[in-house]
This record gives sequence, C-alpha cells and structure tokens, in this order.
Amino acid sequence: MSELAVIALDAMGGDFGIDVVIPAAAHVLKKNNRIHIILVGDEPTIRGYAEHHAITLMRDGADYTNNAISVHHASEVVAMDEEPAIAMRKKKDSSMRVAINLVKQGVAQAAVSAGNTGALMATAKFVLKTLPGIDRPAISTTLPSVHGHTHMLDLGANVDCDADNLLQFAVMGSVLAEAVDNVSKPKIGLLNIGSEPGKGNAQIKEADKILHTAPINYIGFVEGNDIYLGDVDVVVCDGFVGNVSLKTSEGVAKMISHFMKQEFSSGLYNRMAGLLALPVLKALKKRIDPRMYNGASMLGLNGIVIKSHGGADVFSYANAINIALLEIEKSVPEYIRHCMAPLLVPLTEKDKGENS
Amino acid sequence: MSELAVIALDAMGGDFGIDVVIPAAAHVLKKNNRIHIILVGDEPTIRGYAEHHAITLMRDGADYTNNAISVHHASEVVAMDEEPAIAMRKKKDSSMRVAINLVKQGVAQAAVSAGNTGALMATAKFVLKTLPGIDRPAISTTLPSVHGHTHMLDLGANVDCDADNLLQFAVMGSVLAEAVDNVSKPKIGLLNIGSEPGKGNAQIKEADKILHTAPINYIGFVEGNDIYLGDVDVVVCDGFVGNVSLKTSEGVAKMISHFMKQEFSSGLYNRMAGLLALPVLKALKKRIDPRMYNGASMLGLNGIVIKSHGGADVFSYANAINIALLEIEKSVPEYIRHCMAPLLVPLTEKDKGENS
Repeated sequence: MSELAVIALDAMGGDFGIDVVIPAAAHVLKKNNRIHIILVGDEPTIRGYAEHHAITLMRDGADYTNNAISVHHASEVVAMDEEPAIAMRKKKDSSMRVAINLVKQGVAQAAVSAGNTGALMATAKFVLKTLPGIDRPAISTTLPSVHGHTHMLDLGANVDCDADNLLQFAVMGSVLAEAVDNVSKPKIGLLNIGSEPGKGNAQIKEADKILHTAPINYIGFVEGNDIYLGDVDVVVCDGFVGNVSLKTSEGVAKMISHFMKQEFSSGLYNRMAGLLALPVLKALKKRIDPRMYNGASMLGLNGIVIKSHGGADVFSYANAINIALLEIEKSVPEYIRHCMAPLLVPLTEKDKGENS
Repeated sequence: MSELAVIALDAMGGDFGIDVVIPAAAHVLKKNNRIHIILVGDEPTIRGYAEHHAITLMRDGADYTNNAISVHHASEVVAMDEEPAIAMRKKKDSSMRVAINLVKQGVAQAAVSAGNTGALMATAKFVLKTLPGIDRPAISTTLPSVHGHTHMLDLGANVDCDADNLLQFAVMGSVLAEAVDNVSKPKIGLLNIGSEPGKGNAQIKEADKILHTAPINYIGFVEGNDIYLGDVDVVVCDGFVGNVSLKTSEGVAKMISHFMKQEFSSGLYNRMAGLLALPVLKALKKRIDPRMYNGASMLGLNGIVIKSHGGADVFSYANAINIALLEIEKSVPEYIRHCMAPLLVPLTEKDKGENS
C-alpha cells in the first residue's frame, strides 16, 4: 500500500468536466507531494486534453505509488439532469461510478465529483454502503461565520428526517469538525425556530432529547442567524431545511452584491468611491466567496466522497480535492465508525422496540 | 361609523413599549390625517409619558372620529417570554388582548403589537377566529429582492403544514400581494429544494398538485435563492422552513455587514476609502434595512393584526402602523374571504372524505 493519498476524480462530471478537473488536479499536485490523482473518464479525451495543455500524465500500468496523475478509463458519463436511480442502475461504467468503485476496491481513498448530486449520493450509497449505525448519509458543507466558519448538515440528501437521523448527523458533524478544524468537543447545535425548550415540531423535540444524552458537545437549539453569527461549530438539520437555508444564504449574498454594484455605479462620486474602495471590497468578497468553501462531504459512507459544486472553477475544484485530502489524513469514516459504536446498542434496541 | 381608519396599538408590547409606540403613533398621525390611533395599555403611564414628551392625547370619551390619539386602559401586560397559552388564558385584560378585542368589537379596524409573537397569534386566533376555509392563520412579511420585494409566508406560526394549509397560504399571499403592491395576478411560488417536478417531500408534492388547480397565478417550485433573486411575488412555505430561512437571511446580512466594517477599518487606506464610500454604503444599507420592512401580517383572521418586531424603533414601528393602514384601505380580510369562497366546497368535501 502506498503512503501517498490516492484520490479518484470523476473527470467528466460537472458543468465543465475535464476543462476544470484536469487543471485543478495539476494545481493540487504541484502544491502537494504526497498525493496521487486518478482521473476517471474517457481516456482518449483526457490524454488529448493533457497533451494539449502540457500536463504530464503517467503512462498505463500505474501502481499509484508516485506523486503523479494517472488515468482510469470509464466509457460513460452521468448527465447533470439525469435521474439518480437511472444513472445508478444503467450507467455502470460512468466516470462517477468507476471513481467510487476505486474507493470501494481500496485503490483510492477518496472520490471527488462535480456531477449530479442525487446520482452521486445514490451511487455512493449503493457502492460503498453506510457505516454501522448510520441509516442515511448526509451532505455537509462549511460556511463562513463571524467566528471563523460553521459546518452544516444535512444539505439536501434527506428531505424527511426522524430524530435518530438527526442524532446520526450530529455525531458525524462532530467528527468532521473535530477532524477538519482540529478542535476537541466541537459545539453542536440543532436548528430550530427558537432557542427556548418546547419550540419546534415533534421530530426536533424528540431529537433534542436524545442529543442531550449523546457523547457529543450538544449545546441545544440554534436559530438560522446562528449559522453565521452564533458560537456553534456544527448546525444540524434535515435536508429540506438545510438546502433551503443554504440557497437562501446564496440569494441574500448575491442580492447584497447586486445592490452594492448598483450603488457604486450610480453617479460619478459613487464610481470614484467604488474605485477607491475596490481593494477593500475584494477583500470582503474573498471572505464570503463560496469558492473558498467548495467541497461538500458525503458523510456516513464506508469511504470518502466529496461533492464539488457543478459550476466550480479550477480554484474552487482544487479546494474540493483538498477537503478529500484532509478527510483521508484524519480517517474521517473510521472515526465516525468509532464514535457511532457506543450508540449502536441503544439504537438497535430502540428500533426493535419501535418495530415490535 | 367614522371614515377614519381606527388602529389599536398594544402600547405596552415589545422590548421598548411606550418609548417606541407613542412616538411612532405621533409620527404617523402627523403624516396622515385620516387615522385615529388608540393606545391600549396602562392609562396613567401612557398619559404621563405623553405629557412629558408634549404629545397630545384626547381626553376620555373619545368617539374615534377625530384625527387624533386616544387611550384605552388595559391593566395587564404580556411579557415577551410568556407562554402563549398562559398569556391567552390568564391575562384577559392585557394591552395585547384588549387591542384585539377592539378589532373584534368593530371599534378599531386593525391591531398592531410588538409583543410576544406566539401570544399575539394565539390571542388573535382565539378572539377573532379564522376566516371560512382557513384552518390556520399565517404570518407574512415583505423582503427585499433585486426585483423590488417578495412576500413570504408562513414565517413561524405553523411548524407542520399539510398541502391544504399551503394552498390556503398561497391564496392569502396572493390577496396580500395584490392589495399591497397593486399588481394583478401576483406570481406565487412554492418553496422547495429544487425546481424540477418530483423534488421535495410528500406534502410539497401534494401541495404542488392542488396549487396548479387553484385560482391563483401559481408558477411552481422556487428555491431559497429565488426569495431574493427570482421573478416571484409570493413565496409559500411552512412556518418552520420560513422561519429558518428568514433568520438565516438576517444572519448572512449581519455577517456581511460585520466583515464590511472590519475591512473598512483595517488600516489607514481602508478607513479613508470607507469614509469616502460612506454615502454609498448608507444607501446600500437603506435598501436592505429590515426596519424598512417591519410589520408582519397575521393573515387568515377575521380582522387585521400586524406584528411589529419586538426590538423595533420608532421609524420601524411606524412602518408597521402604515402596513395596518394599507390593509384597512384594501380590506384584506374581506378580500381573502372572497377569494377563499370558490375553494370552500372542494375543501370541505375533501375534509369529509379524509375524515370518513
């Protein structure tokens, strides 16, 4: 087994496919000498692109022990608008599926894809299976906050969640934050519509109860504003609420940016002020740039799978690869397995009780 | 009956009580000669404050036909953290309850309160009852958008909603947007985690089906970002999602403002640029100032009730009074009743079918 981190990239996925994935791979390779990248996709296309852009790819027969980029052929591509179930059942040789297979086979330690989220989640779950005690994987991302950043999950993998799902998300989020941020006992909050006890719907109240008994640093209910302003490391919610909250955030940020551009371009004085303020505005933009935070973790699987934004550019996609690297270094799936173990018995007993 | 709009204000409600409510009343009165305001609360306290601040209040025995401010005594106050059920049952002479009673009695045409949202909703529903066909009232507010503004409901009154509730919210939102914005056939969107058919949970899919048959301009699914960027007039969602989305928005806006202040104050150049950009930044702030949008409508009641933000200042509270005025002018509750009428038969039949 190589000591390098081996990462399989779905080279054909996302809005821009190889145009983004290959330069991003080359960029990460230049910055890190302990990585081997496998580009998964149509080999002639990939080799053609690399040759044209003077990017060195290994010859066939790679044993993945070199700090280099190799190619693994896959004949099919999952379209961005393809039905997840169909992509999973029919496209067994898709670049997405083959990248995940490499993780399953132990050839790669992580897969990264900018493809169709639904198809990626369905395929990853089917191929890798979930960890013991995890009913459903969750999608987690990092968001900027006045205190640094916040992890949030689930962001859309699960539209309906019961209290046990939320507990599992909380444990996974705690592991991720501990690994990624190097903090012990990260603060876990449950997203609700008020911070007083008694607020929320039935699932939330039930989840609150069991979270208080879980071996994590559960701080209770948090509200939407706490994602960006609160003293919390991980915000837990169901995938419907998480997805709406995330997209709402994008909407607000874009609207403010739109208004700012309008104000700074109305009249000579404002344009001058805008020019002078440009370095400041650029610094501001950088602090909330979603590209800085690209790379969502699909947590709860027997393996590391990172979802890049479909429209990611090279800088942004490279961030997603770096998140995969970090999760490999910290053995995130193994750590989740370890943390779920003490919860397994009560959960199983509870399930039995409910089903009997 | 007077031709003036008569509005009852819960003078004791909110974080600042009379310190905000009385000056706001005086401000609105100065700008509008077709209004009579009734300050509901502890009479000696109110008269003492008014005298001290040289604000003219009518003597006792007001018949509400004058363009003036009068006082209606109420001996109790609902605390901001009081349990809604207890506030409703035990505090029958609270300033909040008495203000709503005045609407019920036809003395006032609208009530405004900055008090405890839960208590206000519970009391308003108990005293005024809901309109025919409306199972549960909803809270709606106006949010800024690149296209002007968007109405959104429900924002927290109902944590669990079925498809019929969402349909009722859609009709009420349509009426509100038509009345407030003077547009015909406002565009109504259902908040979901994707715009493609088949996305979302069971309630959302069911609501989508029935909304397509409703006598409103239903444009289908919208996503979180569409609240601020999309071509939609009314965004419909359940109260849990709406509340999280609203508070998330506040969080993002405050974080950006926080970062902006930090960037504009780090170093001499940035501080100079910030000073020069100040008028522009002020104009920007004004465009997204939540104070501009203060005043949430509790829709679906037999009467107009407006909830002001608890921490509203005078300017902000005056906006809430102006929203009450607008809803009086447009007879919003009567118009909702009118629009719900054609939906009543199918709904009733459906209920029968479900319960049998």
